[in-house]
Amino acid sequence: MSYAPNTDIVIVGAGVIGLSIAWRARTRYGPTVTVVDPSPGRGASHAAAGMLTPVSELQYGEESLLRLGIESARRYPEFAAELADAAGLPSGYRACGTIAVALDADDRAVLKDLHTHQTRLGLHSTWLTSRECRRLEPMLSPAITGGLHVEDDHQIDNRRLVAALLAACDRAGVRLVRERVERILVTDERAHGVRLANGRELSADQVVLAAGCRSALIPGLPPEVVPAVRPIKGEILRLKVPPAMLPLLSRNVRGVVKGGSMYLVPRADGELVIGATEYELGHDTRVTAGGVYELLRDAHELVPGITELPLLETLAGLRPGSPDNAPILGRSALAGLVVATGHYRHGILLTPITADTVAEVLAGGTTPDLIVPFGPDRFAPAARKVMA
Amino acid sequence: MSYAPNTDIVIVGAGVIGLSIAWRARTRYGPTVTVVDPSPGRGASHAAAGMLTPVSELQYGEESLLRLGIESARRYPEFAAELADAAGLPSGYRACGTIAVALDADDRAVLKDLHTHQTRLGLHSTWLTSRECRRLEPMLSPAITGGLHVEDDHQIDNRRLVAALLAACDRAGVRLVRERVERILVTDERAHGVRLANGRELSADQVVLAAGCRSALIPGLPPEVVPAVRPIKGEILRLKVPPAMLPLLSRNVRGVVKGGSMYLVPRADGELVIGATEYELGHDTRVTAGGVYELLRDAHELVPGITELPLLETLAGLRPGSPDNAPILGRSALAGLVVATGHYRHGILLTPITADTVAEVLAGGTTPDLIVPFGPDRFAPAARKVMA
Repeated sequence: MSYAPNTDIVIVGAGVIGLSIAWRARTRYGPTVTVVDPSPGRGASHAAAGMLTPVSELQYGEESLLRLGIESARRYPEFAAELADAAGLPSGYRACGTIAVALDADDRAVLKDLHTHQTRLGLHSTWLTSRECRRLEPMLSPAITGGLHVEDDHQIDNRRLVAALLAACDRAGVRLVRERVERILVTDERAHGVRLANGRELSADQVVLAAGCRSALIPGLPPEVVPAVRPIKGEILRLKVPPAMLPLLSRNVRGVVKGGSMYLVPRADGELVIGATEYELGHDTRVTAGGVYELLRDAHELVPGITELPLLETLAGLRPGSPDNAPILGRSALAGLVVATGHYRHGILLTPITADTVAEVLAGGTTPDLIVPFGPDRFAPAARKVMA
Repeated sequence: MSYAPNTDIVIVGAGVIGLSIAWRARTRYGPTVTVVDPSPGRGASHAAAGMLTPVSELQYGEESLLRLGIESARRYPEFAAELADAAGLPSGYRACGTIAVALDADDRAVLKDLHTHQTRLGLHSTWLTSRECRRLEPMLSPAITGGLHVEDDHQIDNRRLVAALLAACDRAGVRLVRERVERILVTDERAHGVRLANGRELSADQVVLAAGCRSALIPGLPPEVVPAVRPIKGEILRLKVPPAMLPLLSRNVRGVVKGGSMYLVPRADGELVIGATEYELGHDTRVTAGGVYELLRDAHELVPGITELPLLETLAGLRPGSPDNAPILGRSALAGLVVATGHYRHGILLTPITADTVAEVLAGGTTPDLIVPFGPDRFAPAARKVMA
């Protein structure tokens, strides 16, 4: 392998965030771009389910994040089509809608509150009786007490998305270096490249830190610009619906089951993704017996027919969590360093908007309004201390 | 690869049965032996749990099978030691005892009946209160209603057993051919070899059919000597107990949980095997969501602490079931053909006795009394018709 010692932009991390920024920056603005990752696309991007559901997953007090999610979802069809075209591969986008269902009366109250909140914000969401839920999705359990239908919340097959981004980057001339970044190089209060585990150095005008939950672990940065991300483990299952049982489900199913939340995401090809647990256990990606048990138990409560399906895969990934659960996007206080991490459970959803806005920042533009609330400086050391 | 066209004995199937017969025949009596299997040791022998528990798993009306199992268990320590010596590898034998526990009152009644039956047959088994169960195994759930302790029921790590048998066979000069048998060759009412999928033929004085549940699928035999075996799928889980939690369990735990039966088998190295489901679905080795769910649910009822353990592997194997659940052993009605299959759930337990007795048959001896009840001719066509 050989590559030039200099590149305009070096991106640390080849998940959907790093790759989409690379592709957008390269094709829109023309700089040379190098992405460094020992295992491209194999972190949280690989373990995700690919729900594009900003309305169904609305949380109180996160309206600016909602706006970002909705705008990213709005851009998705065009982004996915353009990507598929550029890659010569399907990008896995599926406009299928989402149904959120409640198991018991308490779960129903949770969804009713969500529906009220959605309606107050002018979001499109329809309340359904149990019978109406089952008319949309006949395989739902008769025990379902009600739900809501969000027609504009869709999905993308995250593994196809990764494959398409890798191919599109390659075709666009983005260089991919399969190595670990050992250190970010900083001199005279400016980030100017990275040192790889093999000892090589790559110098660059700008460094993008997009290494997910590992973004806080890479040495070299002054402490005040290290992004405050931590790993939040999630386990998912991949099942296979045999052709004779298709379609088991026709849209995403979010379930509120005895206070907990989970989802079933049916792919067009028959794969069914079930997720996800949440644990804060550090950088541990082992699948636990308890996590698998809970997912199967809750999925079985919602869709009893899943018991017959082959279980193809159990796996765990680490989401990058930030102190306020929102992403960390834009120029940092350190010259030459741009940050794009902390996407927590929303990395796949926020891929188009992250790619568009961060590429614009890298091209020297002003920070787009949409991402101003998510700047890297909002967790000042003083603020962090208060939270600790 | 090259091998002589002639061999004294050709064995179809390199599971624990085929390999142990090969090893015993070769080392005790000296014939040339060839074992043929496209994936040695990867069938039911790989998916087993390795419980050596004839007393704990006693069934009504199977006293001759009980005698066979107890005799095989009695031979195990010497067999395992001799094998480890011959292979230069550990054979995985562990003398740990077994505790069988009941979850609810009905389950307790089932175990009480078993205990009465064991006692009547003169078997060594001790009834335990819930508290006594937990004194032996502190990680058992307080919900356990009682159980029994069988000190002489042990275990062997079936994967180490396979590895040791392969090594011992190799050292003894047994030839292993990694090919599929396409046909058993029969001429003039005598089996005289096999044809491989690659077109080669291997001629032999005697053919041993030890291909587990696939023994009924190999063409060439007259219908009346095709062994009446069918696949009975079993799913198991392999978990890992972290060093800090060792020993989670010190002995085999059989559980009777709301009428169903399952087990947890703790290896000395921290692996914990949980099994097993039973389905009759043909030659299908896909792990199902429902099977994994049930195993985790029941295991969690018995030993709540398992939820924290990493889940290493889920897999399914196909046991060879016979019409009366007992093995099919010995000379068939076809000259030159010896059968050793149909071991159902007891293949690992019955390995030493099968190897000893079938090797004796192959050497030209009379059929040992112990296996006379299990002869291939007991399912005459008329008898089969009545059962169908």
